[in-house]
Amino acid sequence: MPLALVLERQHELALRNVELPLEVGPGLVKIAVHTVGVCGSDVHYYTHGRIGPFVVAAPMVLGHEAAGTILEVGDGVSHLKVGDRVCMEPGIPDPNSRASRLGMYNVDPAVRFWATPPIHGVLTPQIVHPANYTFKLPDNVSFAEGAMVEPFAVGMQAAFKAGIKPGDTAVVLGAGPIGVTVALAALAGGCARVIVGDLAQPKLDIAAQYQGIIPVNIREKSIVDEVAILTEGWGADVVFECSGSPHAWKTIMDLPRPGGVIVVVGLPVEPVAVDIACASTKELRIENVFRYAHQYDRAIALIASGKVDLKPLISETFAFEDSKAAFDRAVEARPTDVKLQIKVAG
Amino acid sequence: MPLALVLERQHELALRNVELPLEVGPGLVKIAVHTVGVCGSDVHYYTHGRIGPFVVAAPMVLGHEAAGTILEVGDGVSHLKVGDRVCMEPGIPDPNSRASRLGMYNVDPAVRFWATPPIHGVLTPQIVHPANYTFKLPDNVSFAEGAMVEPFAVGMQAAFKAGIKPGDTAVVLGAGPIGVTVALAALAGGCARVIVGDLAQPKLDIAAQYQGIIPVNIREKSIVDEVAILTEGWGADVVFECSGSPHAWKTIMDLPRPGGVIVVVGLPVEPVAVDIACASTKELRIENVFRYAHQYDRAIALIASGKVDLKPLISETFAFEDSKAAFDRAVEARPTDVKLQIKVAG
Amino acid sequence: MPLALVLERQHELALRNVELPLEVGPGLVKIAVHTVGVCGSDVHYYTHGRIGPFVVAAPMVLGHEAAGTILEVGDGVSHLKVGDRVCMEPGIPDPNSRASRLGMYNVDPAVRFWATPPIHGVLTPQIVHPANYTFKLPDNVSFAEGAMVEPFAVGMQAAFKAGIKPGDTAVVLGAGPIGVTVALAALAGGCARVIVGDLAQPKLDIAAQYQGIIPVNIREKSIVDEVAILTEGWGADVVFECSGSPHAWKTIMDLPRPGGVIVVVGLPVEPVAVDIACASTKELRIENVFRYAHQYDRAIALIASGKVDLKPLISETFAFEDSKAAFDRAVEARPTDVKLQIKVAG
Amino acid sequence: MPLALVLERQHELALRNVELPLEVGPGLVKIAVHTVGVCGSDVHYYTHGRIGPFVVAAPMVLGHEAAGTILEVGDGVSHLKVGDRVCMEPGIPDPNSRASRLGMYNVDPAVRFWATPPIHGVLTPQIVHPANYTFKLPDNVSFAEGAMVEPFAVGMQAAFKAGIKPGDTAVVLGAGPIGVTVALAALAGGCARVIVGDLAQPKLDIAAQYQGIIPVNIREKSIVDEVAILTEGWGADVVFECSGSPHAWKTIMDLPRPGGVIVVVGLPVEPVAVDIACASTKELRIENVFRYAHQYDRAIALIASGKVDLKPLISETFAFEDSKAAFDRAVEARPTDVKLQIKVAG
Repeated sequence: MPLALVLERQHELALRNVELPLEVGPGLVKIAVHTVGVCGSDVHYYTHGRIGPFVVAAPMVLGHEAAGTILEVGDGVSHLKVGDRVCMEPGIPDPNSRASRLGMYNVDPAVRFWATPPIHGVLTPQIVHPANYTFKLPDNVSFAEGAMVEPFAVGMQAAFKAGIKPGDTAVVLGAGPIGVTVALAALAGGCARVIVGDLAQPKLDIAAQYQGIIPVNIREKSIVDEVAILTEGWGADVVFECSGSPHAWKTIMDLPRPGGVIVVVGLPVEPVAVDIACASTKELRIENVFRYAHQYDRAIALIASGKVDLKPLISETFAFEDSKAAFDRAVEARPTDVKLQIKVAG
Repeated sequence: MPLALVLERQHELALRNVELPLEVGPGLVKIAVHTVGVCGSDVHYYTHGRIGPFVVAAPMVLGHEAAGTILEVGDGVSHLKVGDRVCMEPGIPDPNSRASRLGMYNVDPAVRFWATPPIHGVLTPQIVHPANYTFKLPDNVSFAEGAMVEPFAVGMQAAFKAGIKPGDTAVVLGAGPIGVTVALAALAGGCARVIVGDLAQPKLDIAAQYQGIIPVNIREKSIVDEVAILTEGWGADVVFECSGSPHAWKTIMDLPRPGGVIVVVGLPVEPVAVDIACASTKELRIENVFRYAHQYDRAIALIASGKVDLKPLISETFAFEDSKAAFDRAVEARPTDVKLQIKVAG
Repeated sequence: MPLALVLERQHELALRNVELPLEVGPGLVKIAVHTVGVCGSDVHYYTHGRIGPFVVAAPMVLGHEAAGTILEVGDGVSHLKVGDRVCMEPGIPDPNSRASRLGMYNVDPAVRFWATPPIHGVLTPQIVHPANYTFKLPDNVSFAEGAMVEPFAVGMQAAFKAGIKPGDTAVVLGAGPIGVTVALAALAGGCARVIVGDLAQPKLDIAAQYQGIIPVNIREKSIVDEVAILTEGWGADVVFECSGSPHAWKTIMDLPRPGGVIVVVGLPVEPVAVDIACASTKELRIENVFRYAHQYDRAIALIASGKVDLKPLISETFAFEDSKAAFDRAVEARPTDVKLQIKVAG
Repeated sequence: MPLALVLERQHELALRNVELPLEVGPGLVKIAVHTVGVCGSDVHYYTHGRIGPFVVAAPMVLGHEAAGTILEVGDGVSHLKVGDRVCMEPGIPDPNSRASRLGMYNVDPAVRFWATPPIHGVLTPQIVHPANYTFKLPDNVSFAEGAMVEPFAVGMQAAFKAGIKPGDTAVVLGAGPIGVTVALAALAGGCARVIVGDLAQPKLDIAAQYQGIIPVNIREKSIVDEVAILTEGWGADVVFECSGSPHAWKTIMDLPRPGGVIVVVGLPVEPVAVDIACASTKELRIENVFRYAHQYDRAIALIASGKVDLKPLISETFAFEDSKAAFDRAVEARPTDVKLQIKVAG
């Protein structure tokens, strides 16, 4: 029985042996897990034991942002071979569902998603996964970057849904891990500049390392005023709401230009008050994002080409045996931490 | 000084003489007004003296849904001639504004709109108007239908924004005048069927005259259940919110299919509570509509071709001298009244 | 061994017994074939023995436009039951191919398509088919209409690709079976009117039965002139090329408006001379269509709602034992024949 | 009378005094011209005396890629002031034309375009221009870069029409000035990588300076093979045809992926043979580009943000008095020359 980081129940983690299926059927590959990122949702299951309707009712292996090396290849797999360095999509849809056939597998209600109860995650040395959701990493993309593809894919989906036109000006509300990856995807996806607003200066300082990002500390300045100044009163082409805060919704309609777009990435827990009349006057389009579909190959291509550098976002790397320490550090939520990773192998 | 229906102040209408500019400059046409529809906004100014920030501070001529006959043509006008039967867009944008140049003149903040303070409306025998916003009526489209183009254009804009795909299933919440024209535009615009929900059976009965409309009395049945049954649990491709009621927002997210669209036409007075998390899970697109742009020629083409029949929506026609009676009848808001019209000429 | 209409080789048809797999595995259904339409491609295999790279190298059952009744249901099929009246998509893609996962299964190079060598067609009493590509017919849609869904789906795909906006004016070049179904799909899909051009008056007469279709006999009139007159010199929003004739390409660029669309449905055998400079000056979009994807449910919805009536296009129905006569009649290519059908079952 | 570079007739240039209107009416600005780029069309008028239907029938000032400084501001101009550094769109549409009102002013047939007979260009010290088509340059964008905005805007329009999705792979056929600006716009507009094919190694070497561009010398290698290798047999998301060569059309259909896009920028003089059947099998979208609309502010934003560096494309700068030498050098068409500029002022 392999070792794994198991969430026994709320507040209780154990690095212990656990039974996991490792048979390599047709269309599947076995992967030696190398690096796994710690995601906010992993941490939330640890601290709260649930996310909305998803409750940790039985011990569950954590981790869903992963990269590794192909160990074995099942029948019918042609695009991967033993030794390939890869990263993996954590969600496995039913290819015959109506949503999947329409190309929207992310909204297939039957998706099985790693580290979402009752599906085990991948903080364990070996896993088996569908080859179709396993992507080869080019030589110039490291395992650490490969494990960043998952959070970056959320940013990619947001940028895709925005329908960015070359040279657009965007606003990102919230400079947490999601806000920053959205900002980078928006820049790589065609924006000329991205105005990022947050309350925490250390988060803004990390974002401001990137050319094209304009940080706004919203404790000190009104982001509505800043956007008006930078766009000569016209407004932003695209606004990405990544804070999940109901406060953001109070003034969000003042940010986009007439005919602009709001892309909602951050999820408020409760329904929020939305000023429909303002959205109407500007004829805004509001897009909602749920995970991602068809973004992994695109995300990897942007990293490989050098257009997107995610390495500055990896704040610290822990050994597999220090997995619990990694999670306790994540619980601290230091504003200077963007992404913590765990090196499972080597 | 010509006669006109003047809103002197809240609650006070007068059919009296008023000074109106009637010079036909370059690019303008003079029109003999024939028929004018009574719109909910006209009535609202009458009963409330204001709509949001627009306050009736001085006497104002009412009416903005109009058709008539060309009396005189200004320099540089080539597509219209004396005697042409026409209908007119009530909003006149600045062609050099940023929004107009981008093709979105409806969101130009400088638009001058008939019967919106301080701009006079057209319940008067003669008016002068830009030729570019004056549209020739084909022989088989009556003045009464011509005066219906304005409210129908709102439905056209909603159908356009929806991005209907041929054979879509739509839901319309609210069977008032806007809901019905939206439903007709959705059907003409490619929907196979439109499920219309309302509390008032007489309104549903009027809507149900049209092939393709499926009425649902939401006092008796759950529209969520009905849509689920009719779409085998998948949901509607497009949902048009035309009720303006905050109640509609409580369950609206249960109506569209994954990847579906909500088009917001009805405006709640206050911000409404929106369940962002549900919108996210389905990756919904939410479109907002403000009046219309570039819809008049399309609306007229659909009426002329016989695809859209607006005549059953004209509930009663009043003589010009009975204009006040028309407004008092409109204030009654009989559920069997869709559109009241006033015949100014002949 | 069941009876079937077999194309033994070019020019040679036989109604004889043939071995066909009839096991109902998981996800499959067995169907009693009721009605099958005769398609131009069936006829072309009969008269030429090949279509481009697809060569009839071994005896092949013909027929791919079919409707019937469910006889047996395999494991895991939930949306169909024995006795359901259905129609079937003739192309079966690999759900795990890259194109299928992106929602474009029609361009999956691995598609297996009925009556396309070496895949057998369905002119035989019983067949087994994937449930996902089998669609229930509403009570008010006949088997004959069900067998028309396949050719109509081509029109639906063309209308979908056009991106029709409500109230558009379209042109269809060619009034053969494809041209007519494209015109009907364009009307149902939002066009106000469709100008149909052809050399053969009997074909135009059939098309002209439908409200909204404007026939133009291009032997007698210039379609460029007619479109200019009908659109006041602006041009059509969408032009569907359904003739497959290189002649059509000589003047096609004069038909669309600036910023308009050409949808190519008819395929010239050889490369054709295209006037790129004209396409550029108008910034045209040119869309190409290959069969269809995700159109069957939409096509059925439009037929069921009464928006599309395909019955006038069924020119004659043959008994199964007269199948060869049906094909010989099809070879005649009478201008008054749109669709010939064969009734396989009782 | 000001000095100007006048094309007297084919083959004959003169730097001489010429009468030009310099009155600053409402909505206009007077500009001191600083830098003007030499465009292929200027050179073509010089060498051929015409471009298609546009014939140099009278002496015409050349030059339409320009930047300068505001000298005077007409009534009603609010976004510019004396001393502002600016660049200018050379095409002036009728704001009331149907195309302009729809937001497509570039396809307005009434556009007046600098240095297109009979409209004078701007190789002269002072000009008057509509403020709406005059754009302020940020401090970090030089006059030389400002004069590059015009050719870059063509690339922007092509990238816009492509509908690039973040992370796309593009191919550009032709590495001349247009091909390179298209490649840069495609990268800035969201592509992860752009494969550029040309016969001339010096042109490819210039393009290859930019990260993300993969040069392919099509004398040595098959671009079809290279694209297949780089995309694992799938094909490119977008193909930009920038060579204008009929040869390019022989294999262009082998480059895009199923469902991909071809954007046509280069214009062959004669109609070219297009393989419609191949375009159909892949369901390609083909977009055509004519100049640009609404791209100047976006182009400037990308240059100002550092995402696009056009400076390496400026091969040599000539003094105003050496304008003829600049044109004679342009006629040489050295493969190492991308853009030649003339400094009119300072």
